[in-house]
Amino acid sequence: MTMTATIDPTTSGTHDTLDGLDSEAFPAAFRHHAAGVAVITADSGAGPAGLTATSVFSVSADPALLVFSISAVSSSAPTIASADTVVVHLLGIEQLDIAQLCATSGVDRFADPSIWDRLATGEPFFPAAATWIRGRIVNRMVAGASTVVAVHALEAGQGDHSASPLVYHDRSWHGLGQHSALDV
Amino acid sequence: MTMTATIDPTTSGTHDTLDGLDSEAFPAAFRHHAAGVAVITADSGAGPAGLTATSVFSVSADPALLVFSISAVSSSAPTIASADTVVVHLLGIEQLDIAQLCATSGVDRFADPSIWDRLATGEPFFPAAATWIRGRIVNRMVAGASTVVAVHALEAGQGDHSASPLVYHDRSWHGLGQHSALDV
Repeated sequence: MTMTATIDPTTSGTHDTLDGLDSEAFPAAFRHHAAGVAVITADSGAGPAGLTATSVFSVSADPALLVFSISAVSSSAPTIASADTVVVHLLGIEQLDIAQLCATSGVDRFADPSIWDRLATGEPFFPAAATWIRGRIVNRMVAGASTVVAVHALEAGQGDHSASPLVYHDRSWHGLGQHSALDV
Repeated sequence: MTMTATIDPTTSGTHDTLDGLDSEAFPAAFRHHAAGVAVITADSGAGPAGLTATSVFSVSADPALLVFSISAVSSSAPTIASADTVVVHLLGIEQLDIAQLCATSGVDRFADPSIWDRLATGEPFFPAAATWIRGRIVNRMVAGASTVVAVHALEAGQGDHSASPLVYHDRSWHGLGQHSALDV
């Protein structure tokens, strides 16, 4: 059984005199934080859905668990959040087009049949991704305007091992490699 | 009241024929994923504790919520996971030394009094960080060998706005800037 927990700071047991950072100050602070870029796809019966996320991380190797969060304002959020299984693509710079496509509102992200396919298990996916992981949603935690989703990783596909990871920071896209490595 | 949910894929309602990715294949897949670097500090009464995390993201702007995960194998994990409030530092490349210090086992991470201080509210913090956010833990979700912690952001401090964000990828440190930006 999947459990759902809800976070509502206003009803938590302890209270601060502060109301918390407002919706300008908080994003401003996070503008200093970079993130790897992923695209998450699923089909819960009504056709393929996909979205770009900069909120994917691995939480446990054994069992293999990852989490991501999805904002309620994304048109694909209901499909992804209600799916049994999802595909999480970890993107390299060669897949910037897919990252941009799945971050664009008001377009059919699956209009071009040449860029996506289905796994044997049925989920839509983008074969060009440097790495993809198919997994089952095992938990959901509502957090304000988003849902944090935990996924048990079942299967992975590897693309180009030498791919330069795609990173998002302060509204711009970056690629990692020798040129960005620090001399430690 | 803080709720705690536990993820145990082996007892979830639906079953796969696959056992999931093993503890070699899953980290290998995630080696393609880059992440911003943060240091999280707290003091739940037994002295300051701090750890380096590559698993911090913002989940909601209103209310201001972020999440991170901490591995049970970190010596600082019990202090951080049980604290009421924590400080999340979003690091730039100038704070690589702090990131390395708080990722090193078996050292006193607060031995040098010149690099840390306490906020007026009591939490230990590293003033050199590009950005820090003080927040209250409002939820915890056990996920395999880790705990996913949700934090309501209460207060932020800004350091150097022009700092180049520190990124971790495949066991190496990177810095972002014009040199890593993609020409979109």
